[in-house]
Amino acid sequence: MESKDLDDRIISTGKNFFSCIQGEKPTLFNKNRWVGKVMDWCMRNEDFRLQLFRFVDVFPCLRTNEMLTSHIREYFSGENHDIPAVLKWGAQSSGLAGAIGATILNKVIKTNIEEMARQFIVGEQTRDALKNIGKLRDQGFAFVVDVLGEATVSEQEADTYVATYLELLQALQQAQGDWRPLGNGASGPDWGHAPKINVSVKPSAFYSQTKPQNFEGSVATITARISQVYERVIALGGFLCIDMESSKYKDITLEVFRRLRLRYRDYPHLGVVLQAYLTATDKDLDELLAWAQAQKLPISIRLVKGAYWDYETVLARQNGWPSPVYTVKAQSDAAFERHAATILQHHAFCHLACGSHNIRSIAATMEIARQLGVPEERYEFQVLYGMAEPVRKGLLEVAGRIRLYCPYGEMIPGMAYLVRRLLENTANESFLRQSFAEETEIARLLEDPQRTAERQASAQPLNASEQPPLPVFCNEPAVDFTVAAQRQAFADAIARVRSRLGQTYPLFIDGKEVKTEELLPSTNPADPAQLVGEVCLAGVKELEQAIAAAKRAFPAWRDTPAEQRADYLFKAAEAARARVFDLAAWQVLEIGKQWDQAYADVTEAIDFLDYYAREMIRLGGAKKLGSAPGEENRYSYEPRGVAAVISPWNFPLAISCGMAAAAIVAGNSVVFKPSGLTPVIGHQLVELFTAAGLPAGVFNYLPGRGSEIGDPLVEHAEVSLIAFTGSMEVGLRIVEKAARVQPGQRHVKRVIAEMGGKNAIIIDDDADLDEAVPHVLYSAFGFQGQKCSACSRVIVVDAVYDHFVERLVEAAKSLKIGPAEDPANYMGPVADAAAQEKILEYIELAGREGKILYRSRVPNTGFYVPLTIVANILPEHRIAQEEVFGPLLAVMRAEDFNQALEWANGTRFALTGALFSRSPAHLEQARREFRVGNLYLNRNCVGALVERQPFGGAAMSGLGTKAGGPDYLLHFMDPRTVTENTMRRGFAPEDA
Amino acid sequence: MESKDLDDRIISTGKNFFSCIQGEKPTLFNKNRWVGKVMDWCMRNEDFRLQLFRFVDVFPCLRTNEMLTSHIREYFSGENHDIPAVLKWGAQSSGLAGAIGATILNKVIKTNIEEMARQFIVGEQTRDALKNIGKLRDQGFAFVVDVLGEATVSEQEADTYVATYLELLQALQQAQGDWRPLGNGASGPDWGHAPKINVSVKPSAFYSQTKPQNFEGSVATITARISQVYERVIALGGFLCIDMESSKYKDITLEVFRRLRLRYRDYPHLGVVLQAYLTATDKDLDELLAWAQAQKLPISIRLVKGAYWDYETVLARQNGWPSPVYTVKAQSDAAFERHAATILQHHAFCHLACGSHNIRSIAATMEIARQLGVPEERYEFQVLYGMAEPVRKGLLEVAGRIRLYCPYGEMIPGMAYLVRRLLENTANESFLRQSFAEETEIARLLEDPQRTAERQASAQPLNASEQPPLPVFCNEPAVDFTVAAQRQAFADAIARVRSRLGQTYPLFIDGKEVKTEELLPSTNPADPAQLVGEVCLAGVKELEQAIAAAKRAFPAWRDTPAEQRADYLFKAAEAARARVFDLAAWQVLEIGKQWDQAYADVTEAIDFLDYYAREMIRLGGAKKLGSAPGEENRYSYEPRGVAAVISPWNFPLAISCGMAAAAIVAGNSVVFKPSGLTPVIGHQLVELFTAAGLPAGVFNYLPGRGSEIGDPLVEHAEVSLIAFTGSMEVGLRIVEKAARVQPGQRHVKRVIAEMGGKNAIIIDDDADLDEAVPHVLYSAFGFQGQKCSACSRVIVVDAVYDHFVERLVEAAKSLKIGPAEDPANYMGPVADAAAQEKILEYIELAGREGKILYRSRVPNTGFYVPLTIVANILPEHRIAQEEVFGPLLAVMRAEDFNQALEWANGTRFALTGALFSRSPAHLEQARREFRVGNLYLNRNCVGALVERQPFGGAAMSGLGTKAGGPDYLLHFMDPRTVTENTMRRGFAPEDA
Repeated sequence: MESKDLDDRIISTGKNFFSCIQGEKPTLFNKNRWVGKVMDWCMRNEDFRLQLFRFVDVFPCLRTNEMLTSHIREYFSGENHDIPAVLKWGAQSSGLAGAIGATILNKVIKTNIEEMARQFIVGEQTRDALKNIGKLRDQGFAFVVDVLGEATVSEQEADTYVATYLELLQALQQAQGDWRPLGNGASGPDWGHAPKINVSVKPSAFYSQTKPQNFEGSVATITARISQVYERVIALGGFLCIDMESSKYKDITLEVFRRLRLRYRDYPHLGVVLQAYLTATDKDLDELLAWAQAQKLPISIRLVKGAYWDYETVLARQNGWPSPVYTVKAQSDAAFERHAATILQHHAFCHLACGSHNIRSIAATMEIARQLGVPEERYEFQVLYGMAEPVRKGLLEVAGRIRLYCPYGEMIPGMAYLVRRLLENTANESFLRQSFAEETEIARLLEDPQRTAERQASAQPLNASEQPPLPVFCNEPAVDFTVAAQRQAFADAIARVRSRLGQTYPLFIDGKEVKTEELLPSTNPADPAQLVGEVCLAGVKELEQAIAAAKRAFPAWRDTPAEQRADYLFKAAEAARARVFDLAAWQVLEIGKQWDQAYADVTEAIDFLDYYAREMIRLGGAKKLGSAPGEENRYSYEPRGVAAVISPWNFPLAISCGMAAAAIVAGNSVVFKPSGLTPVIGHQLVELFTAAGLPAGVFNYLPGRGSEIGDPLVEHAEVSLIAFTGSMEVGLRIVEKAARVQPGQRHVKRVIAEMGGKNAIIIDDDADLDEAVPHVLYSAFGFQGQKCSACSRVIVVDAVYDHFVERLVEAAKSLKIGPAEDPANYMGPVADAAAQEKILEYIELAGREGKILYRSRVPNTGFYVPLTIVANILPEHRIAQEEVFGPLLAVMRAEDFNQALEWANGTRFALTGALFSRSPAHLEQARREFRVGNLYLNRNCVGALVERQPFGGAAMSGLGTKAGGPDYLLHFMDPRTVTENTMRRGFAPEDA
Repeated sequence: MESKDLDDRIISTGKNFFSCIQGEKPTLFNKNRWVGKVMDWCMRNEDFRLQLFRFVDVFPCLRTNEMLTSHIREYFSGENHDIPAVLKWGAQSSGLAGAIGATILNKVIKTNIEEMARQFIVGEQTRDALKNIGKLRDQGFAFVVDVLGEATVSEQEADTYVATYLELLQALQQAQGDWRPLGNGASGPDWGHAPKINVSVKPSAFYSQTKPQNFEGSVATITARISQVYERVIALGGFLCIDMESSKYKDITLEVFRRLRLRYRDYPHLGVVLQAYLTATDKDLDELLAWAQAQKLPISIRLVKGAYWDYETVLARQNGWPSPVYTVKAQSDAAFERHAATILQHHAFCHLACGSHNIRSIAATMEIARQLGVPEERYEFQVLYGMAEPVRKGLLEVAGRIRLYCPYGEMIPGMAYLVRRLLENTANESFLRQSFAEETEIARLLEDPQRTAERQASAQPLNASEQPPLPVFCNEPAVDFTVAAQRQAFADAIARVRSRLGQTYPLFIDGKEVKTEELLPSTNPADPAQLVGEVCLAGVKELEQAIAAAKRAFPAWRDTPAEQRADYLFKAAEAARARVFDLAAWQVLEIGKQWDQAYADVTEAIDFLDYYAREMIRLGGAKKLGSAPGEENRYSYEPRGVAAVISPWNFPLAISCGMAAAAIVAGNSVVFKPSGLTPVIGHQLVELFTAAGLPAGVFNYLPGRGSEIGDPLVEHAEVSLIAFTGSMEVGLRIVEKAARVQPGQRHVKRVIAEMGGKNAIIIDDDADLDEAVPHVLYSAFGFQGQKCSACSRVIVVDAVYDHFVERLVEAAKSLKIGPAEDPANYMGPVADAAAQEKILEYIELAGREGKILYRSRVPNTGFYVPLTIVANILPEHRIAQEEVFGPLLAVMRAEDFNQALEWANGTRFALTGALFSRSPAHLEQARREFRVGNLYLNRNCVGALVERQPFGGAAMSGLGTKAGGPDYLLHFMDPRTVTENTMRRGFAPEDA
């Protein structure tokens, strides 16, 4: 194809298109209407846009006049409570003061937002939807219906989703008889070939437990449920399109499509969506076409640009992943044309639905089809209902075959859809905005996007940046199980680790392995008969040896320059990075941690190494103080001596590594006592620090019984620093023992202790429950609730209590329980028999104090306890006050937000907490008054990341240190001031 | 006088002068000689200049070849041990490797430096001096002799200084007979009017205890001793000039001159020096002339520019004083001409000695004299011996009457003089450097300095600085007792305080005064019968009230914005500033603190208020962490709750105020228990915080018996923070008690404790003893050694032991002991009878463990203990290990520097320490290995300033906090992280 000619023809067609719709405007940009006026404000005011979209998002939850009033005020009032005039537009401005004014204002805004929503939703009820669809068909438009719904957080909701489609199809089937076919014929399908009934489904809505690491399980369940819908579609001769959601579900969706297509191979009407903004789409498309050709199966593809660009970009940056989407809009546009051409080249067995409002994209599709001689029935056009009226009008005139994508359903879930559409159309780079709001010149709008992208790239200033000596800290990327290779790597690592179970690990003192007679076995909590490994146990003799070695190593280590000390940490981080999957796999087997969380524990260990190394370099140089001449004041830090690091089993590598790395890089030498439940993982620190070449004696590995060497280690006169993470009871015992000065002791001991929590998540009356339910579940039951940060109380404001709790319990019932080895399982066994027993006792207590809403079944083998949700818990109950450290979630019903906050703060602990709310005032109040070390707003309360969320609490939760934060290393050192009088004989250097 | 004409004539005379010495160069700048070569390097390399001058300074102390070698290496070798070629200049470069090379190098450098010194010193021995003086006279130059000497640190040394002059005068008298008078006559005085014998004396050398606050005592003693010299001068018909030293002694010197002039009113040959660089000289000169005129006494003034410019500038900036000197060189030059004119106008009774090498100044003096018709015998010219040979040659030709200022004496003290001269002449703005080294154009050199100053001022860029919202922290200025008004203000304040003694002070709880029945008297330790005041004593009941009040006040105070909390501190600082003298005077009477140190305690309190307020503003804003989109991480600090502040008596306002201010500004509420020995000063905090308007309950004043309310305060379940400064015993008790969790306690308590010290000062073998002796005395005996920072061990390297200890003991013997009210007293009473008893026991023990070198007498009334120095102390002695907290100094003789360092580090404490050394390697080693919280190099080890020297130690001296430092407030708060998920519906704001 000669591209110059083609481009000319595309531009010419595009110009025709524009002239054909001249003077028309989409409702969205019609400034004579409220929505157009408001959109205009949005496009001129980024902050207002943000507030408006957030308000629209929460709007359907504002059940009372009071809520509506307060939210309007919170979102739109500045200091002087002045609601922007644009929002009052259309109301009588005279009557807007006081309570009556508020009522009028509420009404104006409510009416207008609802009208705006109705603009994009074909109907809230089936009847309205059918009526509107009928009207559309009368106007010559085909349709595809999509059911709006809350996110599917439980299997019950997945079943409901199926049922909703079956009902919808029933209704459509009844209506179908009345519809004249579009196009020329008097009966039969539209345009002679297309089923009149056409529905779209969201695959993730069919299975609440969809997750990439459980790829096969996710595909199988979705395929099974979607089949129920598809069989009905087949029965009534319709068309089913499987929508594409975020890239997390892409490969699952494509596989579901293939399975379904194969299973019903004789019925041709099945489509899938590809998103041009994904860089992977070239490959995906090629593979899909090759597959269809090989299978000799006709397929249908709806090609779109993609609607999750912000989300994909944010998620990738938050997790340290490469961006899955093009970062320049024109690149997506160019890809669209490329993909359209590819599909059209294969029109023999692949039907194309061109889903775009971009006139250049539409024109390109038309001209490419024309050039390739593609028959008209092999492609059609799709646009969104209610959005780009001039475009659909033009398309109807120019192409004829046009289908409107019609969302249908209730307002609450509909708002999510509405917000996404509004965002899309008011984004700076939106084609509709540029075409109809900004009237960008047509030539620019119709420019070949490939050329646009090149032009933009060349306009970017060349970044002639000098590389800083040390790049800034970035968190180690999270595992990405959407990548098949990573799923495979994890499975391989588990197999590898399995082959190495049962080994014996010696102590490590003064750079040498030390064997002792008594061995401690470590077993798999999911299978206590399985020996993970055995470690030698240290007694008091070995304790003395280790402390002596650490003491000997200290002076030279202290005098090693900070940069060199940091370098050992960088090397240890490199060693961990090289075997990240193996390190994670050990956690799956030794302590029953789920894949993603085991991997996250290892990346957190890497983060600690990397971050503390950088921190020490930052703090290592002496700081100059004062500006008086004739004296030089230098403020610096020096290590304390021998540090005891006593670590827990729940973050067996991360926390051990963090505490040890901080102590070491600060210049202390370390005696490390790992938890007796994860001593094999503890031994990995020996391996990492040995790989880094750390000098002998700086790090000593000393597993031993707490009852035997715990107190002697803490009380030892030569130990000047104790870093501990664990229970409050043990922590307070250490604090107390360390405070007593021993004979010969030369330092007042410093204790860094992170202890327990009784963490609450508050669910406000305007919370987004789609988000709140899964985040609460993850906070409470991830790793069996065995995190000091875990949520053990969910405090729900009365107004949403019933709805939230119902969804929560149903969602909990959907969770699978079993060995962490199987990534299908959400929850595994607890740490050991003692933990099991203690938690079971608490569950019994919970039954006495409150009402058990759910108590899961558990496997027979292994240290399992039921995933349990208990309601009717009041602040005075023990279940509301004591740390359980297991999968037991107390639900508390609070009258209002203030009571919820009071209850949340009403324990001895102050570690983590979270709030789900869309009230700016409540979020702000929580920022001030929700007194925990780590507060999370509108997200779960676990998984703090190094540097981004320095972790730790106060009150009885800890001593106010913050692991992974900018002040942490200070606790491992003492500051020194060196003052030199630089004046001699009355002469002082200028810049002393 | 028509200034234009005059200026023309000055320039013309100056040009003549220049042409008359054309081609001549001072030896100093003669590049054919070593010194000229080296000076040339100095002027081109600031760092080399610094190193060279420091090396020259220490050079005479390098007694052995090894010392010389090591110092040459340390001062001049870079990484690759490459001694600059310039230093080897004149040596055979071939033989410079290895040990032999070092020997040769040593010899070259030694020879050259000694030659350089001899250039400026007329003789080391009397015989040489007389011989050289004879030669000078033969060449036509008169002389004035000045005896170089060590600083006078003891009365013995003052006596020696007198004796040296008497001997010198004896020798001069003998030589005088052989001298032909200068000028025309064959006999009689020089030039017909000037005594041949002319000596200069340094007034401060006549009295080791000279200090401005003891103005009258200093003047009287100096006058008495100087009279001994002057009577001999009179007897042999000579001339005595009283030199001017640093501005600290200026007013004393002028007063001594007047007294002496009056006492010997009939003998006219007495002179004094005025320094043109002092801004006060206009006024001083006017007053002096008016006085002489009124008294009808002829006087003589030597006018100089002034030689302590660097020192004066540095001292003023270090103390926060206005600069006493002009900051622009040309301003001093202009002042010189102005003063010269003034003196010449009064030539009838005031003789002028024009002391300058600046040809412009010389020419101006000549022309002004000519214009005024001043007879030749009413003025003469003086230049420094050995310095400006061309100038003296020109002056001899042009003016005839020229006198050389001839320093005479040993090399060691002579080096100080040499360094000052070298600095002067190699400074950028030196006239000699500009004239003879840089050959600046003559017109510029001869420009009217007034015009130069104006030109330079106008060339300065206008600083159009925006005022930052809050000016940077500056320490409150130290008291300046050279200012008569400040001396008077202090005396007045004492009188005022005396009139208010004996009052009763109530408790202060919840913003209200609370009276109790039991009263605690506080008395003057110098006069225990004198009641300073009485305070109500709190019992457990009042303790509970105070804690309850603090608890009630906490939430609102915590929620008060940091800036507002800071503002209360600024206001309290303002209140303290307004009554600084009164606050200081109370300390003199209640605890026996010397004037300057009492004042410093108050300014330190002001500093704490000002600094912590700024620190809180700095820390008050939340810090943004991370850069990932879609989340907002804020890191901030929040207070802990009720803080107990338990404070000592030795810095009764500063430390109390510092701890309380830190706790308060961080947002905690405070229960403050002052020391029972300084409860009246403790009550000043009530007054300051009340003046600042602090809300009720935030600060509560609760004096009480430690035995009664100490433990209950520390153990109280509602107290979450304890800030303590005091003894190790009490500190460790608090640490231990606070670590035990009490029923109902909701926070693990945090303890901030500053405890004791056993601080050492090391005297290295190359130390500058002139500095070391007074700094050790001040460190050991200032405020009776009752500072945790006080020096209680001086560890002297063997090679200088005898000399140092002899000078130290003699200096100690010179110290006056008595009530702090009298500023003549160096040392006062200790705190109370118990302290007295304990210290006396230690002094007895010292006598048993070592050898008492000095034990002073003390007054009979009051809690005095003898100022005691004990030698032969070894590390294992109790006197070397236990804190005495009184004026007992242990002297230890160490083999070498390494042993000294080992001994210094060899206690359980690690608070302060100091080293006097001029070895760069030893200074560097101390920076690394002298393990104390506050290390001082070449200065005393007390008096840490807020912000410049954050104060506090580790080991058993404290918990590693640093009062007045950048990390201090962190201990009073807990960090919090608030993380908001800012992504809703897939949309995240750009800059969240």
